[in-house]
Amino acid sequence: MSDNKKAVVVISGGLDSVTLAHYVKQLGYDVYGISFNYGQRHKKELNYAKYQIDVLGGVHKIVDMTFMTDLLAESGSSLVTDTEVPEGHYGEESMKATVVPNRNMIMLSIASAYAISIGAENVWTGVHAGDHFIYPDCRPRFIMCTDAAVRIGNQGFGNLPEIPDNEGLKQGDLDKFIQTPFIEITKNAIAQSAFALDVDIAMTWSCYKGGDIHCGKCGTCVERLEAIASTGNEDPTLYEDTTFWLEALNRDTV
Amino acid sequence: MSDNKKAVVVISGGLDSVTLAHYVKQLGYDVYGISFNYGQRHKKELNYAKYQIDVLGGVHKIVDMTFMTDLLAESGSSLVTDTEVPEGHYGEESMKATVVPNRNMIMLSIASAYAISIGAENVWTGVHAGDHFIYPDCRPRFIMCTDAAVRIGNQGFGNLPEIPDNEGLKQGDLDKFIQTPFIEITKNAIAQSAFALDVDIAMTWSCYKGGDIHCGKCGTCVERLEAIASTGNEDPTLYEDTTFWLEALNRDTV
Repeated sequence: MSDNKKAVVVISGGLDSVTLAHYVKQLGYDVYGISFNYGQRHKKELNYAKYQIDVLGGVHKIVDMTFMTDLLAESGSSLVTDTEVPEGHYGEESMKATVVPNRNMIMLSIASAYAISIGAENVWTGVHAGDHFIYPDCRPRFIMCTDAAVRIGNQGFGNLPEIPDNEGLKQGDLDKFIQTPFIEITKNAIAQSAFALDVDIAMTWSCYKGGDIHCGKCGTCVERLEAIASTGNEDPTLYEDTTFWLEALNRDTV
Repeated sequence: MSDNKKAVVVISGGLDSVTLAHYVKQLGYDVYGISFNYGQRHKKELNYAKYQIDVLGGVHKIVDMTFMTDLLAESGSSLVTDTEVPEGHYGEESMKATVVPNRNMIMLSIASAYAISIGAENVWTGVHAGDHFIYPDCRPRFIMCTDAAVRIGNQGFGNLPEIPDNEGLKQGDLDKFIQTPFIEITKNAIAQSAFALDVDIAMTWSCYKGGDIHCGKCGTCVERLEAIASTGNEDPTLYEDTTFWLEALNRDTV
């Protein structure tokens, strides 16, 4: 590829991570996308990840983590077991059924190994403020610790920024290897960025159910519908149900 | 199984992790061993891991991470690429060729996901003081950050100990989920424990080369020979070369 610096982007194929990949490309990096097949119901999202990385002229890796289905069989997570995917607002308590134990740490640790191996500058992930309520592994403090662990655990290898040799760790005292530009912004703001960056939104996949088209009723579909509507732009996505999300919004459950 | 508490033990099949599994069993836990096939040359170690967990009446999972071979092709690590395994003392500079980027974080994050899924109390890993020199991901500060990341990233799920809700993190202010009883002791002391715990040492595998019998010349073989000799007990292991380690020891390279 080029002489540009390399960036590894964790990309699921959803609106957030696809927008992130376009954002990172616009910053001048060559994009190395990494996606994970962990036995999720909605693994068709991986095709969208590949499509988008191709659009950006990047390199795309899909990591086979199907061992997760067996390993996490007792977790009760609806994304990797037979438990039903809950419908309703993304912020609802029922959405906890979609938590996959330690998913982000596993993905970030593998993405970091890849980044170190190819001499990339950093690893990017599209966690955002709306994720914090349900997913503890999308919160700033988790990212801070994970970032520190990667940098301490690989000191002297790859392109990791130097870390000060003190025993304590405080938020903000390290230059980040793991980059999370969306962590304090909302999904609505990300959708706005998607339009600004000219992302082909129809070629992203959010629905947890993984059917032929987006269901329009699961937590991520409702969240996606709200966010795209908030931009005032037309939503090019096809949904099975196009009114449920407004009712969910009006139930004011968050 | 029984009503005992569950513990997940990361077990490679080597002397340290096998001794650890026996130690954890003796503490009264039911042992859930987890091993990783990451394309390592010496994957025959996995058979020894399985054998030992069977001896302990535990459950054993082998996680297929062979994707690492492709993902880390540019890392130059002699454990997952064609680069030759260095010979000599474990502490030597040349042993850096055996570093696999971020290996411990990947393994600990998957082991933690498994532990949370089955409601285990904790995750155990056999890193020891002699590992610190070569492997940054065996140092106490790395374990501290990884432990914190797991507990923050999975708050409210599994059997994780509560964490205080402050933004700073200092070493020692958390009850550990990731347990490392050997982190400040030497390999010699572990070998002593192995004999005290009646571990069948002949049924452990250390050699990085993964041949028919232990080579006696790679870093881990030399380390193993030294440690077992230091206990004053007879070493039941078969080695191709039985004198190289003494020369390496006398070169006083550490």
